[in-house]
Amino acid sequence: MEWISNGNIMIVGLGLMGGSYARILKRLGFRVDAIDSNGDSIAYALDNHIIDRGFTTADPVALGEADAVIFALYPAVFRRWIEENQSLLKPGALLTDVTGVKSCIVYDIQRILRRDVEFIAAHPMAGREVYGVENSRDDLFRDANYIVVPTSANTPSAIEWCKQLGQILGFARVSTLSPEEHDKMIGFLSQLTHCIAVSLMTCSDNRHLADYTGNSFRDLTRIASINDAMWSELFLLNKEPLLEQMDLFLREFTALRDLLAAEDVAKLREKMRLSTRRRAYFDR
Amino acid sequence: MEWISNGNIMIVGLGLMGGSYARILKRLGFRVDAIDSNGDSIAYALDNHIIDRGFTTADPVALGEADAVIFALYPAVFRRWIEENQSLLKPGALLTDVTGVKSCIVYDIQRILRRDVEFIAAHPMAGREVYGVENSRDDLFRDANYIVVPTSANTPSAIEWCKQLGQILGFARVSTLSPEEHDKMIGFLSQLTHCIAVSLMTCSDNRHLADYTGNSFRDLTRIASINDAMWSELFLLNKEPLLEQMDLFLREFTALRDLLAAEDVAKLREKMRLSTRRRAYFDR
Repeated sequence: MEWISNGNIMIVGLGLMGGSYARILKRLGFRVDAIDSNGDSIAYALDNHIIDRGFTTADPVALGEADAVIFALYPAVFRRWIEENQSLLKPGALLTDVTGVKSCIVYDIQRILRRDVEFIAAHPMAGREVYGVENSRDDLFRDANYIVVPTSANTPSAIEWCKQLGQILGFARVSTLSPEEHDKMIGFLSQLTHCIAVSLMTCSDNRHLADYTGNSFRDLTRIASINDAMWSELFLLNKEPLLEQMDLFLREFTALRDLLAAEDVAKLREKMRLSTRRRAYFDR
Repeated sequence: MEWISNGNIMIVGLGLMGGSYARILKRLGFRVDAIDSNGDSIAYALDNHIIDRGFTTADPVALGEADAVIFALYPAVFRRWIEENQSLLKPGALLTDVTGVKSCIVYDIQRILRRDVEFIAAHPMAGREVYGVENSRDDLFRDANYIVVPTSANTPSAIEWCKQLGQILGFARVSTLSPEEHDKMIGFLSQLTHCIAVSLMTCSDNRHLADYTGNSFRDLTRIASINDAMWSELFLLNKEPLLEQMDLFLREFTALRDLLAAEDVAKLREKMRLSTRRRAYFDR
């Protein structure tokens, strides 16, 4: 793991996440190159000294020099990139990603990948409501979680490398989950909540209520403003875990509804007290 | 409306809301008295010059001098107070309240009230997650909405007085809704969202997920920490409008679930785009 302080990094997909990785790693002294099909993103990153070298296609020379490759692509694009370009990777290279769903992609990539490189999955749990390298920041990961998602195909040294990557990127917490645990967690904490926010916005034409809105409703629905291409893909890729979480929530919400309809105050209050106790664990 | 710049105000119920009213109105030069059965609250308010005079029971002299009486009580307590003490009110006095539900209380109060005083309902849409006069603030209403909720029993001058009260209290926006419109709005914007937050906390034992939680989940569930006595009462008092909103949300959430199960990407994305467009109306 010598290269953790001295190595060449290639970022494939230079958007909000890839750009933030690049800013931080370049500042730490790594040589950071990037590939993105959008020439404007590459030009912006070069102009602003976010990367050292930039390419709009898979450059054989730069890829052959990269000790680590970080993929910040949509899952389907990621898989296709590996199939088409993995022959260009440096033997011994370590690959990681930023994909927000895991079971559907990690096993696939590991199965089709050359035996002399290793893919260790990770999920940096950070983001903004804006996109693109222009909005990338070198403090995006402060206070955020970084989840390393190994499988039985991973070596201990690659897992350790990936944890160290999370640390030097400045994440507040680095932890490890299996792909299945990760997807269940994301289904509940992130995807279910986006489904709720979207449903709140689409269940009736509520625009005339904007004048009366307090902060709690604004907080709850901030995520109802949603990138439909990205999130519909993420939902489908995590379909089974998300459906399971949606069904759990549906049952519980219906039970609460029925307690109200039955005017069962004692049980309503019991639910509220349980909710209050559990929510305390999430306080910072 | 002469008294709006020079009059005696009585606050009945000296908690977070009543205390905040008192601080602002006293600073504006009104004489502000208060009644609260909790002697500690009265003592605190006197020690901190939040009120001029305080009482733990309905004081006949002070009530006989009050040009306006502001009720900051739970609905059931409010109704009982009127039944027991309305004979002490000054003829011509204007009464208002801070109750968060309206249809269930406004008509009742107006029906049982003496003919020589007038009750005009209002809902100051502000609050904190803490309670009591000790937490009251003179800037609690900045950026908040004040809703005047008249019925056909109200006079134009009382409605106008109540609007002016909202303005001098420092609310950002003062508007008017019927009791039914108000309760539907509250059912959707406030009560439904509390039901969702509670259900998210009670649908599974999610405490082990606290380590992975991002800001959007924290924002969404902040209101899952809930005063069970107050909110169960508010839910029951607004039962029909709330059930209607819960059922609307249930249908829409189930529809989204079914689109995911059917992998209908086009319709999923359509929902997300509608959600994004509607949410834009709520941006500040």
